[in-house]
Amino acid sequence: MQIPETLQNAVDELSKLPGIGKKTAFRLALNILKSDDDKVKSLVLALEGLKSKLHLCKNCFNLSEDDECDICRSNKRDKSIICVVEEVSDVIAIEKTNEYSGTYHVLGGVLNPLMGVTPESLKINELMVRLNNITIKEVILALNPDTEGETTALYLAKRIKEMDIKVTRIARGLPIGGDLEFADEATVGRAVLGRIVI
Amino acid sequence: MQIPETLQNAVDELSKLPGIGKKTAFRLALNILKSDDDKVKSLVLALEGLKSKLHLCKNCFNLSEDDECDICRSNKRDKSIICVVEEVSDVIAIEKTNEYSGTYHVLGGVLNPLMGVTPESLKINELMVRLNNITIKEVILALNPDTEGETTALYLAKRIKEMDIKVTRIARGLPIGGDLEFADEATVGRAVLGRIVI
Repeated sequence: MQIPETLQNAVDELSKLPGIGKKTAFRLALNILKSDDDKVKSLVLALEGLKSKLHLCKNCFNLSEDDECDICRSNKRDKSIICVVEEVSDVIAIEKTNEYSGTYHVLGGVLNPLMGVTPESLKINELMVRLNNITIKEVILALNPDTEGETTALYLAKRIKEMDIKVTRIARGLPIGGDLEFADEATVGRAVLGRIVI
Repeated sequence: MQIPETLQNAVDELSKLPGIGKKTAFRLALNILKSDDDKVKSLVLALEGLKSKLHLCKNCFNLSEDDECDICRSNKRDKSIICVVEEVSDVIAIEKTNEYSGTYHVLGGVLNPLMGVTPESLKINELMVRLNNITIKEVILALNPDTEGETTALYLAKRIKEMDIKVTRIARGLPIGGDLEFADEATVGRAVLGRIVI
């Protein structure tokens, strides 16, 4: 027996999603098949909405349903601090902590010349325009602590310092709840180098 | 910052799927958001197709794009043998083996009085009608070897034997590649009881 084409098609489409293999896709497809029409309709509408309703904020390139995102429009946020992140998901990760009340700038990736990602393919020029136009006290670089993230941070720091703006980056060290014994050498090494007075 | 409602909505809908938690749903939603319009469209169409194009075969309740499924319509299948299974996914599991050339009957579940699943809620009457109408040589019960599966198998065996039709069930024993030492007692016990002459 051939699996019905419609089912196979749904399995193929679902397994294109990240972390979803053929077996999981199959289980999802059979589950959707068994669900009520209403449930499937609301799933489909929600997925369509993602593409049709969400845009990037014209200012900081965060996700938004309008031209400008909630953070850029808010009066409660400190507009003189910009936190530079790689992706929209990083904005959400930082927002969840409730520790930051400035604004953001989403680069849309990190520099990776081998993969053809140059400063021009990221929102770096847009960041420079923002830094030129309004008075900025501090730029926080919150990029991932990997090779590409570090390279991008160094590149940005160099360009921003030329404009006489304070550049900081988020701390590296042992994660909260982590264990010195089991941490990798690079992390422990950075934690020692980055020690602070208490 | 509030996560945009459209995104939250998609995350909520995706996390209703089995095995998809909030974090995975979030990752999927962001991935869909980044995909091309075409890709999202084909995903959405494929999911809609599941509900709109697939029906249950009027005969055996397997999935089909037509009134009757491929297996019931095929001339190559032995119509005098019916293999009774719990779910559509079981049909696919057996078909993958290429060891069976008869037809199927999908019950749509197993008897479970505590959960309110009675013989009337399953496709048991439909099975009896099939057994009455055409000459059937053998009914194979391929239900899962758990309590509900066993109960359903016993119930079906009793009713089908009254009609003077041979009833068999698929073998239980050590799985291929399994290890006697590490198999559970119930499996080893059944394997000993079910030994065959070689």
